[in-house]
Amino acid sequence: MHRIFYPQSIVVIGVSEKPDNLARGIIRNLLTFGYRGDLYAVGRQPGEFCGVPILSSLEQVPDGLDLAVILTPAHLVPDLLETCGRKSILRAVVESGGFSEYSDEGRQLEERLMEVARRWGIRVVGPNCISVVNLEAGVCLPFPVISPDSLRLGPASVVAQSGGVSITYLSWLSRAGVGVNKAVSIGNKADLDEADYLGYLLQDPGTEMICLYLESIGDGRRLMDLARSTTRPLIVQKANRGQASQTIALSHTAALANDDHIVSAAFRQAGILRAEGFRDGVAMAQGLALPPVTGDDLVIISRSGGHAVFAADVAERYGFRLAALPDSFRETVRALFRADVIALTNPLDLGVIFDFDLYAQIAEQCLRALAPDAVLLINTYSLTETEGVQKMARRVEQIVRETGRPVAFCAYGEGGDALNLYRDLGMPVFTEIEDALCGLAASRDRQRWLARHGGRGGWESIGSVAEGSRPSSAGVMTAEQALALCRGYGIPVTPWEVAADADEAAEAANRLGYPVALKVLSTQALHKSDVGGVALGLADAADVRRAAQTMLSRFPSGALMVQPMITDGIEVILGGKRDPSFGPVVMFGLGGIHVEVFDDVAFRVAPLTRADAEEMVEEVRGHRLLAGVRGRPPADREALIQALLALSRLLVENPHIAELDINPLFLFERGAAAVDARVVVS
Amino acid sequence: MHRIFYPQSIVVIGVSEKPDNLARGIIRNLLTFGYRGDLYAVGRQPGEFCGVPILSSLEQVPDGLDLAVILTPAHLVPDLLETCGRKSILRAVVESGGFSEYSDEGRQLEERLMEVARRWGIRVVGPNCISVVNLEAGVCLPFPVISPDSLRLGPASVVAQSGGVSITYLSWLSRAGVGVNKAVSIGNKADLDEADYLGYLLQDPGTEMICLYLESIGDGRRLMDLARSTTRPLIVQKANRGQASQTIALSHTAALANDDHIVSAAFRQAGILRAEGFRDGVAMAQGLALPPVTGDDLVIISRSGGHAVFAADVAERYGFRLAALPDSFRETVRALFRADVIALTNPLDLGVIFDFDLYAQIAEQCLRALAPDAVLLINTYSLTETEGVQKMARRVEQIVRETGRPVAFCAYGEGGDALNLYRDLGMPVFTEIEDALCGLAASRDRQRWLARHGGRGGWESIGSVAEGSRPSSAGVMTAEQALALCRGYGIPVTPWEVAADADEAAEAANRLGYPVALKVLSTQALHKSDVGGVALGLADAADVRRAAQTMLSRFPSGALMVQPMITDGIEVILGGKRDPSFGPVVMFGLGGIHVEVFDDVAFRVAPLTRADAEEMVEEVRGHRLLAGVRGRPPADREALIQALLALSRLLVENPHIAELDINPLFLFERGAAAVDARVVVS
Repeated sequence: MHRIFYPQSIVVIGVSEKPDNLARGIIRNLLTFGYRGDLYAVGRQPGEFCGVPILSSLEQVPDGLDLAVILTPAHLVPDLLETCGRKSILRAVVESGGFSEYSDEGRQLEERLMEVARRWGIRVVGPNCISVVNLEAGVCLPFPVISPDSLRLGPASVVAQSGGVSITYLSWLSRAGVGVNKAVSIGNKADLDEADYLGYLLQDPGTEMICLYLESIGDGRRLMDLARSTTRPLIVQKANRGQASQTIALSHTAALANDDHIVSAAFRQAGILRAEGFRDGVAMAQGLALPPVTGDDLVIISRSGGHAVFAADVAERYGFRLAALPDSFRETVRALFRADVIALTNPLDLGVIFDFDLYAQIAEQCLRALAPDAVLLINTYSLTETEGVQKMARRVEQIVRETGRPVAFCAYGEGGDALNLYRDLGMPVFTEIEDALCGLAASRDRQRWLARHGGRGGWESIGSVAEGSRPSSAGVMTAEQALALCRGYGIPVTPWEVAADADEAAEAANRLGYPVALKVLSTQALHKSDVGGVALGLADAADVRRAAQTMLSRFPSGALMVQPMITDGIEVILGGKRDPSFGPVVMFGLGGIHVEVFDDVAFRVAPLTRADAEEMVEEVRGHRLLAGVRGRPPADREALIQALLALSRLLVENPHIAELDINPLFLFERGAAAVDARVVVS
Repeated sequence: MHRIFYPQSIVVIGVSEKPDNLARGIIRNLLTFGYRGDLYAVGRQPGEFCGVPILSSLEQVPDGLDLAVILTPAHLVPDLLETCGRKSILRAVVESGGFSEYSDEGRQLEERLMEVARRWGIRVVGPNCISVVNLEAGVCLPFPVISPDSLRLGPASVVAQSGGVSITYLSWLSRAGVGVNKAVSIGNKADLDEADYLGYLLQDPGTEMICLYLESIGDGRRLMDLARSTTRPLIVQKANRGQASQTIALSHTAALANDDHIVSAAFRQAGILRAEGFRDGVAMAQGLALPPVTGDDLVIISRSGGHAVFAADVAERYGFRLAALPDSFRETVRALFRADVIALTNPLDLGVIFDFDLYAQIAEQCLRALAPDAVLLINTYSLTETEGVQKMARRVEQIVRETGRPVAFCAYGEGGDALNLYRDLGMPVFTEIEDALCGLAASRDRQRWLARHGGRGGWESIGSVAEGSRPSSAGVMTAEQALALCRGYGIPVTPWEVAADADEAAEAANRLGYPVALKVLSTQALHKSDVGGVALGLADAADVRRAAQTMLSRFPSGALMVQPMITDGIEVILGGKRDPSFGPVVMFGLGGIHVEVFDDVAFRVAPLTRADAEEMVEEVRGHRLLAGVRGRPPADREALIQALLALSRLLVENPHIAELDINPLFLFERGAAAVDARVVVS
């Protein structure tokens, strides 16, 4: 992998002298970005481009080159790769499209390509990709011509399942003052996939954070493990979320959609920051390029009162606290300037000060005297003030470096592109208040995640999906089997007895106490209550006998389950399923309409940590109901958390279980009890 | 008002030769923006600036000038205004700060200023404001120096309760290809307020849409009426929404916070588009500058597959539909180019086409053949392609003009500011997919609102807040009085009888049928159920007698209300209150935890139209429960809507009612019944 990003010799295949030849762009980019290794070009016709001779056959290049970059019609690629193999060129970037993303024929072509690659041990980037970029080594392999001026070296690396998106990220990260280290567009990921690139970049000394754009996630557990194995933040923009994007994603990079709820849950669990789009992805990277934000205390300094008011609204939305300024600070600020028209509030509105030196001084005083977790400095300026603004920005950069504390510098310039003013600055510059606060919040959330999940003596791997022994018979367990399984893992279960006939049922009910519920135990009765397989609130032995007889006449082969009725407690639902990408997943929701109508559920990938279980409970909108409302006592939260952890173990240790629902689990003031469960074995 | 935007003579007061003098900026802006009227400068010391002589006294300027622009220390302003009055200068823009936004002293100064203004009949913009701009007349009064190149004439006018924000809007609207017509920053609105400016701009021929930034809304009903009186769209960014911004908004423009729920509801009701920030405000203006979007059918054309996938996700979020392309269109497109590597899906990914002429042709074919409601054209390009891109953009502009259909052109350029390429273009250019879809959605929502609310023979004024006769005794009505009031307005009410003692109660219960509910009628028992004033589910006469005796022993002066128990139906809550800015407001929510725990409520300003009532019902998250879930029959929607309309009439016609709750109102399969009501009279 290292030699893909640091090749000492490259051959570009598919180059011609024609002006509309695309592969020429690769040669040109390598030259303008200052690539210093050996460079060969191969095409159908001999010739020359930018001083690089075009050889008419791949046979003519030396054996053992580090990297082949192929941009030819798709059908030529397998044979070219065969030649690469023979010549011990064991790394290839295949930029050509027309493979599995396009047609069945293309899929076959891709299989042939991979067969060749595997036979020779060639590692392939793509096919259907455009970029490997390493600004540290002057490597720039996209075919669209890129200006070296538009990119800037920095700490962020990019992995994107779309060439166009990788270029958008390269350009935006550079403009935003973060800068780029390496980038790769992974295309159809026939061989190397996002986890491979991630694994490499997480070890790469030049990479301090990684922005990913994904349209599909193959091995979700591996992605989570990689994210949890590092303190370097991952920002992932996962597209292809809904109905509308599925077809196009399939035809774009052969990407299959994931369950978006589970993707979000897995990201939260693994400390991955999820970006909605390019804009917030880049804003997060900007925030993470600043010194870390370790709490919610924010001071806003603004030159425009309106911007300050708006910023206060947005800060509140992101959960920041605007602490009042202490009197001591007021004194400090008053000493700096005639303060008779400044109200010393937070946000601090400095609208009447026109001396930019003072802004930087106030920001500095603020950091040193108040030590807030972050400062947002909003600057609005007019065309005549650009010099002062640049000076101020440089001073702020210095303050950030000296104090090691985060100042988000947000510039609203009149006209043109505000960022041109700050090209030489060594810190990110925001152009919108929302972006600045999104960035600061991302840094704070990441720090909070590290503190909550990382502080217990290292990382536990979430592990790969266990492949256990599969039972011979797939199907649905009876409620008794399902409840027994749950009880075996320590999930509290309401007591029950099994009865073969009406008399046994009545005797059991006498022992358990009235009122009771009666349920048929039959693997045929999947939804028991829909087919008359459940009778509730039976008040005496006669009731029980009658109900038992009716039920057995409907299900002659079934046995009966007798349970005491539960008359208080809060109903919740626990569930489990196997996701194709993420493996066993635990679900939690409040009972009744909360899950069915409001889709108010939380997911986590198993195994859960205690912190995961706690977060799941907090995540459902209705969690306040557990604290007791309308005069009801609070529910036993600890019992719920233990049940979630037990369910997590159950799912991990029983890979043959495809689905499991505990519905309802009653939570009491003390303790809990599962009343019914449904288990589907695959 | 006209002469404020089109003054033929201006005096700027507060000018000096000193380089740090702020008022000089006003003179300079007027000169560079090509103002052609008479221009005078007044300052303490005589002198000259940019060829304009500085007079040392306001007495020296001619009488009857159209406009005075004042930027001096605050304490000088009242006397200056006095002189203006004497000299028949009857319009003033007061840019100075230090009035009610700053201190109590400032508030007194502002009162003095207004006293002078009223005495002379002077209309005042501000104080504490910076801009009146009219690009049609070369009027540019902000003191920060603005480059005429950075602004562009166009259809959008701006009204902002913050000078800094008005300048951000001016600059962004210009950059985004919309362009600005007029702008005013309203500051403390001591005299003229947002409604005054709106009233003028809605009549102004050059203004086709208006962007407002507000930190407080004074007369909400007038704002709504203005919005409903016009087909010109209003985009309002209402800041000062939460706890954090209140202090700073107060010290910035003396703005008081509004109830944000009600602001949002009123805006929806009046067809006002609410912007969250600058960015979506400008994106909405861009969308509205295109031909109208009249439905949800969208075609996305992209040059990058990744951008297409992301755009499809965002489009779905905004409620757009990506219809499949019919075979006939496939043929048309195939005829234009060798289509063997293009999958003809929607989004259409044209990644392998490098001929920009074709893009425009395909977009045109798409509009003509498919007639979608909108097209999103996403262009990604590299530095070598800028000429082709500009040509394409011009062609797209032409197509939009010819077809009268909206194409959102979204450009992701590599490096630099993409917008520089399109400075001369006569259409908005988006730089992000989210912005483009936000803009198209704003246009669609506006069209939908016009169709839904505007199609019934003109607008009905929502009217000002009625000032009716106040009853002598304020306080809480008894449940009987409250229910009788509701019944009087046609709200269905569960039957009841009033009883003075236990025997009468039992007789009433016999007549009404068991089970019954018993409630104490007392203006002392505000929350009846908390103090033992309610007994439910009484099964027979003995039960009733017992409950009545207990209740009367607690409330010796109270009478008793007997109601039959309602045992089915869906519980909802209707409410009403008086908002200081918006007057009578109707509230709706589902009963129980929906309002209390989930805050799932909808508001509308009374009087409601039928469409308003329908929208309220659809707006609560839980409205699906009304359609019948978990085997329950659907609720009578029409009865609910009639009850909301009746409540609206009740609130409008009884201005002495401060608060009203109908909790619960039961909805049956047919009909409805209010069971309890609470009315607070002010």
